Amino acid sequence: MTKNINRKEYLESKPRLLPSVSIDCVIFGFSNNQLKILLLKFKNTDFYALPGGFISIEEDLSDAALRVLEERTGLRDIYLEQFYVFGSKDRRYDQTHQKIMEGNGIILKPNHFLLDRFISIGYYALIDFSKANPAPDDLSDSCEWYDLDKVPSLVFDHNQILQKALETLRSDLDTKLVGFNLLPETFTINEIQRLYETILGEKLVRSNFQRKILSLGILERIEKKMTGAANKAPYVYRFVGQ
Amino acid sequence: MTKNINRKEYLESKPRLLPSVSIDCVIFGFSNNQLKILLLKFKNTDFYALPGGFISIEEDLSDAALRVLEERTGLRDIYLEQFYVFGSKDRRYDQTHQKIMEGNGIILKPNHFLLDRFISIGYYALIDFSKANPAPDDLSDSCEWYDLDKVPSLVFDHNQILQKALETLRSDLDTKLVGFNLLPETFTINEIQRLYETILGEKLVRSNFQRKILSLGILERIEKKMTGAANKAPYVYRFVGQ
Repeated sequence: MTKNINRKEYLESKPRLLPSVSIDCVIFGFSNNQLKILLLKFKNTDFYALPGGFISIEEDLSDAALRVLEERTGLRDIYLEQFYVFGSKDRRYDQTHQKIMEGNGIILKPNHFLLDRFISIGYYALIDFSKANPAPDDLSDSCEWYDLDKVPSLVFDHNQILQKALETLRSDLDTKLVGFNLLPETFTINEIQRLYETILGEKLVRSNFQRKILSLGILERIEKKMTGAANKAPYVYRFVGQ
Repeated sequence: MTKNINRKEYLESKPRLLPSVSIDCVIFGFSNNQLKILLLKFKNTDFYALPGGFISIEEDLSDAALRVLEERTGLRDIYLEQFYVFGSKDRRYDQTHQKIMEGNGIILKPNHFLLDRFISIGYYALIDFSKANPAPDDLSDSCEWYDLDKVPSLVFDHNQILQKALETLRSDLDTKLVGFNLLPETFTINEIQRLYETILGEKLVRSNFQRKILSLGILERIEKKMTGAANKAPYVYRFVGQ
């Protein structure tokens, strides 16, 4: 992974970056049956944004995504997954970029690369926000978790990128659940149903949910110890092979 | 959709293209329980490749994918879906591009954009190859369907792109099946099982397959007419709402 690329150098002059391509990271946080999203606020502006950045000409795309996330938020060792490329011809945000840079005391030259059209490659992750400590970078006043139903208006097409990431998270939940690592070692059907309900944003029927989650073949039931009262407790499960 | 962009103009000089970004199309063909893949052979070379191309600076990414596919293969009105971005820092194929262009009688200048590093955005489709009539473009000697187990060595990282597309097709089959439109209006469980087996490349157990495909909720059974002998015929299904 390419390290120590100077952000000021990126932004003040035309650096050795891959032209036309940016990365945006949608970091969902789950804990205690709450779903949140990580947003930055650009310095001296009212502009909220997903953490994003650019790719060095000598850097793998996947390494760039990890570096960008770490530089913008301080978060490391996150499992990021590509989910979509945003490629509208209207993705040219020169006036917004001008204002963002003015908030940092920088005036962009007329041919600055930030004024060009970009396609943006979206990456997403779902992590336990109670265990993460994000911090703003030197371009931002804040880097904080927001409830999904209290997301402010975002710059560029970032509201649309967030919405597409949420759709992907919801439709991929069955296959990505084990990797997200959001449940304790052992858990009840009730606990896993709460997680689904929080992420899907809707109540589920217990019997249907139980049938469906068991049919995925990812859970194994732990045998109850024969201690009398324990027979009244719900069954406890863990992920197969964990 | 941007039309009539001159391919020669793209390739002989530095045109108004989005820098650093290419598109590659993986077109799978299914018919009569065979799965094939559409490949081009570059003129006067032994180089086989997926149909690919570039994005105009004033063109939406999704429009560019359709235009590139049509220009390279003649295929129109195909439902293309993004599946992955290939972003290795080693995606710089200057010598191969030189040889491809030499086959077309073109010598690339040292600063030609084809010699740069590109990320490539992969799109895939699954169509009925018996109803498609692909034709080579002016860069190619041929544009033909190949059996999946007889794919030649491809240029660039195109074998890897094909493999990733195949994995995506297989894992998305349950949710994309209806849209692919590859079955007659009504069909038996046997017919749909053959389609799955062909695409997954493996035999499936009849009882397990029947249970799984019915549980998806995409099929409805058509009531048998009471004509005596018909009761020995298998049940016939159609897609819900079709």
